[in-house]
Amino acid sequence: MAFFRNLLKPSYSSSFSCSNSYSVLNKSKTPFSVSSQAPQIYSSFSLFSTQVTQYAGLHPTKPVEKPRVVVLGSGWAGCRLIKDIDTKMYDVVCISPRNHMVFTPLLASTCVGTLEFRSVAEPIGRIQPAISKEPGSYYFLANCTSVDTDNHTVHCETVTDGSDSLEPWKFKVAYDKLVVASGAQASTFGIRGVQEHAIFLREVHHAQEIRRKLLLNLMLSDVPGVSEDEKKRLLHCVVVGGGPTGVEFSGELSDFIKNDVRQRYAHVKDYIHVTLIEANEILSSFDDRLRHYAMRQLTKSGVRLVRGIVKDVQPEKLILSDGSEVPYGLLVWSTGVGPSPFVRNLELPKSPGGRIGIDDWLRVPSVQDVFAIGDCAGFLESTGKPVLPALAQVAERQGKYLASLLNRIGKAGGGHANNAKDVDLGDPFVYKHLGQMATIGRYKALVDLRQSKEAKGLSLKGFPSWFIWRSAYLTRVISWRNRFYVAINWLTTFVFGRDISRI
Amino acid sequence: MAFFRNLLKPSYSSSFSCSNSYSVLNKSKTPFSVSSQAPQIYSSFSLFSTQVTQYAGLHPTKPVEKPRVVVLGSGWAGCRLIKDIDTKMYDVVCISPRNHMVFTPLLASTCVGTLEFRSVAEPIGRIQPAISKEPGSYYFLANCTSVDTDNHTVHCETVTDGSDSLEPWKFKVAYDKLVVASGAQASTFGIRGVQEHAIFLREVHHAQEIRRKLLLNLMLSDVPGVSEDEKKRLLHCVVVGGGPTGVEFSGELSDFIKNDVRQRYAHVKDYIHVTLIEANEILSSFDDRLRHYAMRQLTKSGVRLVRGIVKDVQPEKLILSDGSEVPYGLLVWSTGVGPSPFVRNLELPKSPGGRIGIDDWLRVPSVQDVFAIGDCAGFLESTGKPVLPALAQVAERQGKYLASLLNRIGKAGGGHANNAKDVDLGDPFVYKHLGQMATIGRYKALVDLRQSKEAKGLSLKGFPSWFIWRSAYLTRVISWRNRFYVAINWLTTFVFGRDISRI
Repeated sequence: MAFFRNLLKPSYSSSFSCSNSYSVLNKSKTPFSVSSQAPQIYSSFSLFSTQVTQYAGLHPTKPVEKPRVVVLGSGWAGCRLIKDIDTKMYDVVCISPRNHMVFTPLLASTCVGTLEFRSVAEPIGRIQPAISKEPGSYYFLANCTSVDTDNHTVHCETVTDGSDSLEPWKFKVAYDKLVVASGAQASTFGIRGVQEHAIFLREVHHAQEIRRKLLLNLMLSDVPGVSEDEKKRLLHCVVVGGGPTGVEFSGELSDFIKNDVRQRYAHVKDYIHVTLIEANEILSSFDDRLRHYAMRQLTKSGVRLVRGIVKDVQPEKLILSDGSEVPYGLLVWSTGVGPSPFVRNLELPKSPGGRIGIDDWLRVPSVQDVFAIGDCAGFLESTGKPVLPALAQVAERQGKYLASLLNRIGKAGGGHANNAKDVDLGDPFVYKHLGQMATIGRYKALVDLRQSKEAKGLSLKGFPSWFIWRSAYLTRVISWRNRFYVAINWLTTFVFGRDISRI
Repeated sequence: MAFFRNLLKPSYSSSFSCSNSYSVLNKSKTPFSVSSQAPQIYSSFSLFSTQVTQYAGLHPTKPVEKPRVVVLGSGWAGCRLIKDIDTKMYDVVCISPRNHMVFTPLLASTCVGTLEFRSVAEPIGRIQPAISKEPGSYYFLANCTSVDTDNHTVHCETVTDGSDSLEPWKFKVAYDKLVVASGAQASTFGIRGVQEHAIFLREVHHAQEIRRKLLLNLMLSDVPGVSEDEKKRLLHCVVVGGGPTGVEFSGELSDFIKNDVRQRYAHVKDYIHVTLIEANEILSSFDDRLRHYAMRQLTKSGVRLVRGIVKDVQPEKLILSDGSEVPYGLLVWSTGVGPSPFVRNLELPKSPGGRIGIDDWLRVPSVQDVFAIGDCAGFLESTGKPVLPALAQVAERQGKYLASLLNRIGKAGGGHANNAKDVDLGDPFVYKHLGQMATIGRYKALVDLRQSKEAKGLSLKGFPSWFIWRSAYLTRVISWRNRFYVAINWLTTFVFGRDISRI
């Protein structure tokens, strides 16, 4: 079968090796195959294990085969690249612990049931059908543990949570071109207790956790035996971080309270409150008029805006730097992002701020055939360009640019490893800020279409911008299926109210 | 505030008692209030604790107040009763660890993504709006731990999974009428390993677990390092139990394989298989012709039918009584049901089979004001009637009957505790089997409209019955919102294929 051609073939008879692998799997839970091919791929295996273990994986491609682009990550940057790359020219291998892209601008809406989780998730296989069907293209549910740039190989480990019969195992993938798009992680600023007690808002499982906890607190606060103070604490929702994510979530929450809690949890509707804590200015990257509008609207809808710095987080309250205590039942942490441990451990030059350093063409210039895009990448100081903000539109634009650059390289015959040294790369990547949008509750949003904070330009607020916001989102990278579902979700929420099953 | 009128009021000043309760909550995680009222309610407290702890709860109702019906459970029986009871006459308190009803006939479809989980769940608050809004009606997220029939009180404990800041606590609810509708649990027949390694198919979280595991196995089987045997094992889905649930799930799974796996997991589509294991005959309660049709269709769609008895379940294989081993990657257990530990521990007379014994009017005849319906209840031997099968339509019919009986009692002035002794109860409950339906994959179903196995009557198969099946389900107790969503889900599955995000 053609699609096995790159998998390491066992050198024993197939029945023996199968049972050998199977029995080894049973004993040690680490499947491996013995290979007689391409010994040079294992020169680095001693870096990973003192055992004489050889990992399975994908071979380097032969000159007659399609070159292979390996993409680490399944976010805005990686998925845009996967979508736009020419799969007649390249095989694509996507390696990520998450098999879908999350449409992050709509994530806050899923926490309270305005939208369903599935409506904001787009499976990789639908973004790039070749991954589902083509013999040489794959999606691997795994994390990359390290990159061997000399040997053009990434080392990976599978994700097996949810399986009680499988331990994770390691494998390797040889690449012709590597694109690191592994994203960033939420910053906790070293504050104790954040990881244990707060919930971030970057993934669908965060949104699910928030939703379940909110509904649990609403139900428990109605059970006999809860004191007044406990009721108020349980139903106090605190959001830390006044950027678009925190503001959007506060807006959704206050809308949920005004409409659905009033009807469906009438017994406790007077106890539930929302507080938004920000160290500086909320929505600091937006136009001043829009910011003041947002603050007025949030305050009008019942959100308490507090300027403060969180110093300590405990199971039932947080402590601000001025010593005041804030009891909470639900704590959502939506401050900025920073480099992940994977990025920090990569032995590649870094940009200011610790991201993977890239040049004007989004390459990692110190090695061959490695690129980086999205939140994990930043211009090297030597380029003279500032590190771009960690925004979805930056990531998406970089993914689009890099796909066309790789297609260009492939057309010029530079697709295979170490072949792109003399290819004309064309124009460097230039980011033009198209403005930004944020929603602040039902029917209200901000649309800031200026190219920078200082520039003049169109900025809208209120219902017209809410309408623009909704339309713009619906036209982005989401599939028709999800566009349909998002529209249906919005319609049913409008007609029937949000769903409150604690699932 | 009127809705506090039945809650125990602390006898101290409110600030002292609040802080007292709060500080006690902090220390011992057990909130309680000191009460100066109704000491007789606590005569039984010593049964529950050697501490001098008094639980909070709902008082017995006063003669001028509405009598209170307490319903344990949120399944077919309990929800139908809650829906039909006259809330102008009664306050309704529903106590259940689950805040929604599960539309079980459609549950199998959610495992593979034909339908979304939320489309088959109906929140209690929407089934009976009085629970959300009326001061004296409640839904409590809790389990009933015991029933004190002499004092007309149920003792409960909250469910706090998902909260890291709250321990469960106890409370009591006094009832005028008690309806036990707590359902049954899946039978494991004492077979070792079932609880640990198999997944049942009765709740939404079971369906979620099945779906995640199925997608995990599909993705992992494509990663380098998996031997042929491992791939086959991982992708071998075994269903134990040939009743409607098992057959429907096998049918859905084989449809998923033929359509979605073929397109979206093309690399491994030849490895995935389904085996249905049944000890006797599949669909034994259906007409013979329909049974043979079902077996032919299942076999044609690739399901392997095996007659066997499972003797032992291990993490990666199960052992049949004839000694043969069946390796599996996903094991779904959908055999019969039996009495739950709660029912077994109730000190009330039992029916044959161990359910709560009821008379012709669904009362527990040995005590006052206690009724039982659904899977947890069975006719006492003295009635001469056989225990009814554990079917949704039996439960629903009993819920409907009992609601009208309670309404009748209430109208005759017998609503309050111990007041119903002389009320004329009218006709006893009679169950008339309206036939049954089962689906066996895309566009095929069985509709057996005979009243019993021996009777003659209409029995249909194939596409016409599939259409009837779909229409009939859409007209049942589901709300308009979920009818809409179910129809939308079916439409999008037909147009776009199933969703495969591993969420």
